[in-house]
Amino acid sequence: MRVLILGGDGYLGWPTAMNLAAAGHECCVVDNYLRRRIAEATNSEALLVAPSLTERARVFAAVSGHEIAVRIGDLNDSDVMFSIVREFMPNAIIHYAEQPSAPYSMRGFREARETLRNNLDVTFNCIWAVKDIVSDCHIVKLGTMGEYGTPDIDIEEGWIEIAHKGRKDTFLFPRAAGSLYHTTKILDTDLLWFYVRTYGLRVTDLMQGPVYGISTNEADLDPRLSPNFHYDDIFGTAVNRFLVQAVARVPLTVYGGGGQTRGYLALRDTLQCVRLAAEKPPARGHLRILNQFTEAFTVNDLAERVKVVGDKMGLDVAIASIPNPRKEKEEHYYNPVHSGLIDLGLAPHYMTEDVITDMLERIIENKDRIVSERIMPRVRWS
Amino acid sequence: MRVLILGGDGYLGWPTAMNLAAAGHECCVVDNYLRRRIAEATNSEALLVAPSLTERARVFAAVSGHEIAVRIGDLNDSDVMFSIVREFMPNAIIHYAEQPSAPYSMRGFREARETLRNNLDVTFNCIWAVKDIVSDCHIVKLGTMGEYGTPDIDIEEGWIEIAHKGRKDTFLFPRAAGSLYHTTKILDTDLLWFYVRTYGLRVTDLMQGPVYGISTNEADLDPRLSPNFHYDDIFGTAVNRFLVQAVARVPLTVYGGGGQTRGYLALRDTLQCVRLAAEKPPARGHLRILNQFTEAFTVNDLAERVKVVGDKMGLDVAIASIPNPRKEKEEHYYNPVHSGLIDLGLAPHYMTEDVITDMLERIIENKDRIVSERIMPRVRWS
Repeated sequence: MRVLILGGDGYLGWPTAMNLAAAGHECCVVDNYLRRRIAEATNSEALLVAPSLTERARVFAAVSGHEIAVRIGDLNDSDVMFSIVREFMPNAIIHYAEQPSAPYSMRGFREARETLRNNLDVTFNCIWAVKDIVSDCHIVKLGTMGEYGTPDIDIEEGWIEIAHKGRKDTFLFPRAAGSLYHTTKILDTDLLWFYVRTYGLRVTDLMQGPVYGISTNEADLDPRLSPNFHYDDIFGTAVNRFLVQAVARVPLTVYGGGGQTRGYLALRDTLQCVRLAAEKPPARGHLRILNQFTEAFTVNDLAERVKVVGDKMGLDVAIASIPNPRKEKEEHYYNPVHSGLIDLGLAPHYMTEDVITDMLERIIENKDRIVSERIMPRVRWS
Repeated sequence: MRVLILGGDGYLGWPTAMNLAAAGHECCVVDNYLRRRIAEATNSEALLVAPSLTERARVFAAVSGHEIAVRIGDLNDSDVMFSIVREFMPNAIIHYAEQPSAPYSMRGFREARETLRNNLDVTFNCIWAVKDIVSDCHIVKLGTMGEYGTPDIDIEEGWIEIAHKGRKDTFLFPRAAGSLYHTTKILDTDLLWFYVRTYGLRVTDLMQGPVYGISTNEADLDPRLSPNFHYDDIFGTAVNRFLVQAVARVPLTVYGGGGQTRGYLALRDTLQCVRLAAEKPPARGHLRILNQFTEAFTVNDLAERVKVVGDKMGLDVAIASIPNPRKEKEEHYYNPVHSGLIDLGLAPHYMTEDVITDMLERIIENKDRIVSERIMPRVRWS
């Protein structure tokens, strides 16, 4: 299968490319390094230095024997999108090429506009490239569980049958996100669904929860192949931030009451999910939506889990509730269905003490690189 | 009340401005003439020549004594939006400034992108101008009944309580539109709802059906004040197109089976609805959604009504089903609630034979201006 990975420099994009290449697929990654530029501009650089994509592809080929093609370009520019798709003629496109930070999208007008335009334009260009050049190609789009927000009913996988006044019909599950970033993913879903039903595209929209982890089979082949592991308030996800805070001996920053519940998954499982989705496409004219997480935790649960393991390792972990910089419910119902990926063959890796231990050990090896000013929240929703 | 009308050159924008000015409100209109440029580029110019906004404001002041301020500028440019809002400090903004043609949005990549960017950027800039400069200002946004599509359940006014697996919650009514243009209005609603609940804006989102009519109290003061009455396949709405076709002695073009049902309203009632909404704002933090139409008809109903009146006037009206250029259900359930505007005080003008007669007479006066190449559909969805 020829797989084009948009946003191939990202925390998930690069490990995905290696994983698919190692599985024998022909891969091409594209990126404009937007996240690197934002990370530098906001003092939010990753824990581990990532070489350029070209350099990483060279290292990966040397250690694994698998080639990954690299294109550096801005997919907001339709000429770039169309010419790469025309050149590579993919069977599947994995679309990660979005500004992925909720806090960044809430920082001010300029950042909000950049997020809205970047995310919508890349999705739009991707849709048109497929429609006009490779209409049978399967788009695997990374959405987010955050699209749904925290409704007071069970969250289904993308769709819901609504019975109303004696009649019924099936609709996209209603969504209400907690940041502009998450809202752009709702707009993406709206756009994809319109073009799928109008032109018979085939799309999988993966509603992913926060991802944690630093290690994958391919990344572990050479330190230069590591994912972009962020621990800052802009790009760091909850678990990754807590792990670094434990190592840095600063209290784990629980936002507000800590009852916020989300579905989490290991980086290794993101790779499994994306590969399963890509290898088993839906029929044309179908928007398949899958809820991509393996376990739900409250923020307090996560902090407690990191503390238990960290304390055993002598890190003497403290937990501190700080004023919540976000606008979100701190106590709420949360029961999302997530059986679709299991049905496709996902074998989850759960967040065991061993998994947390391994992550902490890896961070301890790099503890001199931790910059503590990156830890506390620097963006408030209000 | 100081009212800023975005898209003040439009079929609805200019009559709205005159109506609000005549009611004693201080009005400013803004436009970049996008619709005029598209109309010229696509050979879709309106039946009646509209002088420039500046000229129309001058004529209106002379005949009515009411001043309307005019600003020509592109509201996609945030500097333009912010500086006009800062200068005028509106209490209400009526937001019509969108590319309003469904067929144009389906014509090709360039037109689709132009529609997506224009509509989203203006809404986004408007939201931020209000949030940062006039946070108490009421945004009255023109949405469309087309956001809902044609679901198999009753359409509520914007919101629906969903009971699911023993629990319930209230959500935006799920939406699935029939064109990219209509889909951009869904994205607008998503954006507005996010910023309303996050920053406490006050917004009315009017889900409007197709509008018909050529006459308003203020427009009738001088022929140069007429609305931009379109009868072409790009900008013309169903009733207005049928009226011109009847006068031009070409068969009324029913798309497909003609069972497509929509809620329609007279231009005079758009003015009433928008004014009622503007004069009675919702509380801060509320997104009020109102379904703005007065009567539902099938396309066949409309054609038959125009034929009955046209035949009485000796026009000998023919009706012809032509292949449907759109992708839409031609037979479907349709039962939308529309009581909110009645509750606010709307006194509807229905589509009586007299109303149709008056419109036909007005078009007959201008029949030499009809360009028949503009009548048949020039854009296909597939």
